[in-house]
Amino acid sequence: MSKGENTKSVILETGLRMASRDGLVGVTIGRLADDLHLSKSGVFAHFQSKEALQEQILRYARDAFLEKVITPSLKKPRGEIRIKALFDNWLAWGKSDWLPGGCIFLAASSELDDKPGPVRDFLVDMQREWMATLAQTARHATQAGDFKADCDAEQFAYELYGFITAYHHASRLLGDSKAERRIKKAFADLLERNRRHAGANQRSEA
Amino acid sequence: MSKGENTKSVILETGLRMASRDGLVGVTIGRLADDLHLSKSGVFAHFQSKEALQEQILRYARDAFLEKVITPSLKKPRGEIRIKALFDNWLAWGKSDWLPGGCIFLAASSELDDKPGPVRDFLVDMQREWMATLAQTARHATQAGDFKADCDAEQFAYELYGFITAYHHASRLLGDSKAERRIKKAFADLLERNRRHAGANQRSEA
Repeated sequence: MSKGENTKSVILETGLRMASRDGLVGVTIGRLADDLHLSKSGVFAHFQSKEALQEQILRYARDAFLEKVITPSLKKPRGEIRIKALFDNWLAWGKSDWLPGGCIFLAASSELDDKPGPVRDFLVDMQREWMATLAQTARHATQAGDFKADCDAEQFAYELYGFITAYHHASRLLGDSKAERRIKKAFADLLERNRRHAGANQRSEA
Repeated sequence: MSKGENTKSVILETGLRMASRDGLVGVTIGRLADDLHLSKSGVFAHFQSKEALQEQILRYARDAFLEKVITPSLKKPRGEIRIKALFDNWLAWGKSDWLPGGCIFLAASSELDDKPGPVRDFLVDMQREWMATLAQTARHATQAGDFKADCDAEQFAYELYGFITAYHHASRLLGDSKAERRIKKAFADLLERNRRHAGANQRSEA
């Protein structure tokens, strides 16, 4: 990595941390310069505009999400095992140290839903892809014989997404000590009602 | 209503509309004064600070939520009928004309989760109360014989809350034309798995 690329990556990491806490609206070139003891023009040179900075932060977060949540799950065999890996990694993602304010995509989804433009477009594409990945994983579980033939894969993805947002609401806003227990129960029940053989355990991981 | 109270109420209604679209952070005394052709000092006289303004907007929204979602539901008999009324009113709430950017509480939950202070405290109290109301409605359905004896009322509230947030994500951000179908299916299944007699219809509304 060149020195310039390294600086850019440090700026994006700091920006992601800020956005996690204060929303994308809270990330400004001035605040980043202050935090990193850089000149404003030095930060500006990497991004040109606030909008470009916001989009780059989301891209940086998307790459991290791929690396930490999706890629390791794809190493698991198709079926319930892979779904469980995705779920565990997704839950860990929102609690990681470098997202001090929780999942950036949940925050950005609420922040950007009424703000047309390239930043919102990027987020929408990414979120649609993520919902499609979740649904595809459920379809694979049907093909692998873990889930029943008439499992509605998109409905599965929809409900799972809902449980994750409810978890963030309960744990981060309400300070509900049972939040983790609740999402684990919701997820276990969601698996159970989609299983081919109700009450069966998933195939053990070889 | 005195002239002063009337002006205040118009300011709050406009502020709520703004906050629904742009978040509470997007509501400023200056923007309100511009929008309503009032002097900044005229608006300031009603609220004194941006934080007081934000809290008053949430209180105003809470009163509207009580009037439009909770109170009409409480006129229905306890049991599944009341739960359905709450659900229908809640869904309609996020689509009402005077919330052009969708549910203010979902937006504020994400916006305020890392911002300690009286505005967040008010929101947390209100959201805890709402989750307790949902759970209480489920407990009443058990007492009325509609829901099974071992229905976990808090888990019911948690899952229902998740489906509502997933609906907003799908309909408002992703533009998913099936969003309404998905939440209705999720809700119907949630009722079904909590019913005392699986497959039974709820008591008809007399």
